Amino acid sequence: MTTLFGGIEAGGTKFVCAVASSPQDIRLREEFSTTTPAETVDQAVNFFRRAQQAHGSLAGVGIASFGPIDLRPASPTYGYITTTPKPGWANFDIVGALRRGIAVPVGFDTDVNGAALGEWRWGAAQGLNTFIYLTIGTGIGGGGLVDGRRMHGLVHPEMGHVRLPHNWQADPFPGNCPYHGDCLEGMASGPAIEKRWGQRASSLPAGHPAWAIEAEYLAFGLVNFICTLSPQRLILGGGVMKQAHLFPLVRRRVQELLNAYVQDAHILEQIDEYIVPPTLGAQAGVLGAIALAEQAIA
Amino acid sequence: MTTLFGGIEAGGTKFVCAVASSPQDIRLREEFSTTTPAETVDQAVNFFRRAQQAHGSLAGVGIASFGPIDLRPASPTYGYITTTPKPGWANFDIVGALRRGIAVPVGFDTDVNGAALGEWRWGAAQGLNTFIYLTIGTGIGGGGLVDGRRMHGLVHPEMGHVRLPHNWQADPFPGNCPYHGDCLEGMASGPAIEKRWGQRASSLPAGHPAWAIEAEYLAFGLVNFICTLSPQRLILGGGVMKQAHLFPLVRRRVQELLNAYVQDAHILEQIDEYIVPPTLGAQAGVLGAIALAEQAIA
Repeated sequence: MTTLFGGIEAGGTKFVCAVASSPQDIRLREEFSTTTPAETVDQAVNFFRRAQQAHGSLAGVGIASFGPIDLRPASPTYGYITTTPKPGWANFDIVGALRRGIAVPVGFDTDVNGAALGEWRWGAAQGLNTFIYLTIGTGIGGGGLVDGRRMHGLVHPEMGHVRLPHNWQADPFPGNCPYHGDCLEGMASGPAIEKRWGQRASSLPAGHPAWAIEAEYLAFGLVNFICTLSPQRLILGGGVMKQAHLFPLVRRRVQELLNAYVQDAHILEQIDEYIVPPTLGAQAGVLGAIALAEQAIA
Repeated sequence: MTTLFGGIEAGGTKFVCAVASSPQDIRLREEFSTTTPAETVDQAVNFFRRAQQAHGSLAGVGIASFGPIDLRPASPTYGYITTTPKPGWANFDIVGALRRGIAVPVGFDTDVNGAALGEWRWGAAQGLNTFIYLTIGTGIGGGGLVDGRRMHGLVHPEMGHVRLPHNWQADPFPGNCPYHGDCLEGMASGPAIEKRWGQRASSLPAGHPAWAIEAEYLAFGLVNFICTLSPQRLILGGGVMKQAHLFPLVRRRVQELLNAYVQDAHILEQIDEYIVPPTLGAQAGVLGAIALAEQAIA
């Protein structure tokens, strides 16, 4: 019998819920606006109860959540959304609320770690044990695995906030991160591009100088991730990376910056398969949550 | 009965061999110059054979090696020292040579991952599952664990080669990394300090402006490692960090650069226990190799 799992892509704007065993077997799917925590979790619980009546019991549910969240198993606030500015949601025990509503094991992680796990299970990171998934959109976030394990040490990665060389002559934009100014997110997120050029990233043509600058910061970021934990692949998703012409720019610049220091054919010769887009597409978020559910009972 | 292990700190200048069960129980120890591969490994094999005659059989031997080395278990050159410029040592099967000489399981990793494991087993990283050990000396290298696993993805980390902001007005030194110029190692290794100031780092007094600049680059590096994999602690060893006055400078600058973005008491309130020196002292290298031997049979 097929084992079914529930998944919640818990975003600050909307929740996407699904019940599935794989990308080819999505039984039920629903999305609704993120309102108050109680109302929103109730909607999710009702969805999963209906799904269980129609399709049989769920082995677990996964939540790929907006953050910041508490992932320390021993913490008294494990499973909470912590310091979000979103009204009503700060210090909300989302895992507890869901578990009270539907008594199954609950997997929980950041949205980007969910997406990373989804790609590992069914997408561009299949068969790898050490890789990074980076999303470049409204913000920049990263996740992935190291030798099969997620990176939950102190809290969780904040890869968007690494600091990089900034050539002020070539790019006088000071960055728009309220905490760090010109960190990776401050220089290369969608809003940073829009603020620098006075128009939305999606409206900038492929030949616009914006893209060489964008590729420069992304390449610096990737080089640092490569030097720090030696991933077997880097997957770049998010709205900004829908500009597919960015990939060859980023790949070439990563090679230039590493300057053949890391002597490995994946980087020196096969970089088109080393820095890649995700493959799960529109369902990536909720499939990531399904993958988290699988892990919760593994 | 106590289980005994052998360890080799395999450096480009000298090999240190020991037989021990713990830092308090080092039974035999010997060091000798690194000459040809055959002669040097013969000396190590003879040392371990003598040790076995005197103290009983060894459960395994660990090698914490200079590099670069091949750590991919499935690779035909696993266990080799690969592209070193050291005459005679390029493409040398050090693990195979040792295993042929003394038929026991052999653990193998970089010198810095060995040191990291030693600190995890008996020193400053006891009880942690995600931490970074960084050595700042002739070069800069890093290792450690993520959820109990070493970072061996594509090859191994090269943390010294991350790229950082460089304020050319405040510090016109272009860096001395032959591959990257002003990467972390190019700006903050012992030789970089010496080249920038025209005198050895160890001869610069504590109040010298060199140290604020050194702390700046180290702090940028640590901030990037913290954002990338969220370690529970950072251990800073190596010759440069013998300047103990660097620790408070680095800690304060890390806090300033993170700007309270990572909301965790270890960083906000307990940074003196978050960024720390190693505790194993002079035997750290060979004890790291002993820890690798333990892992090899774990």
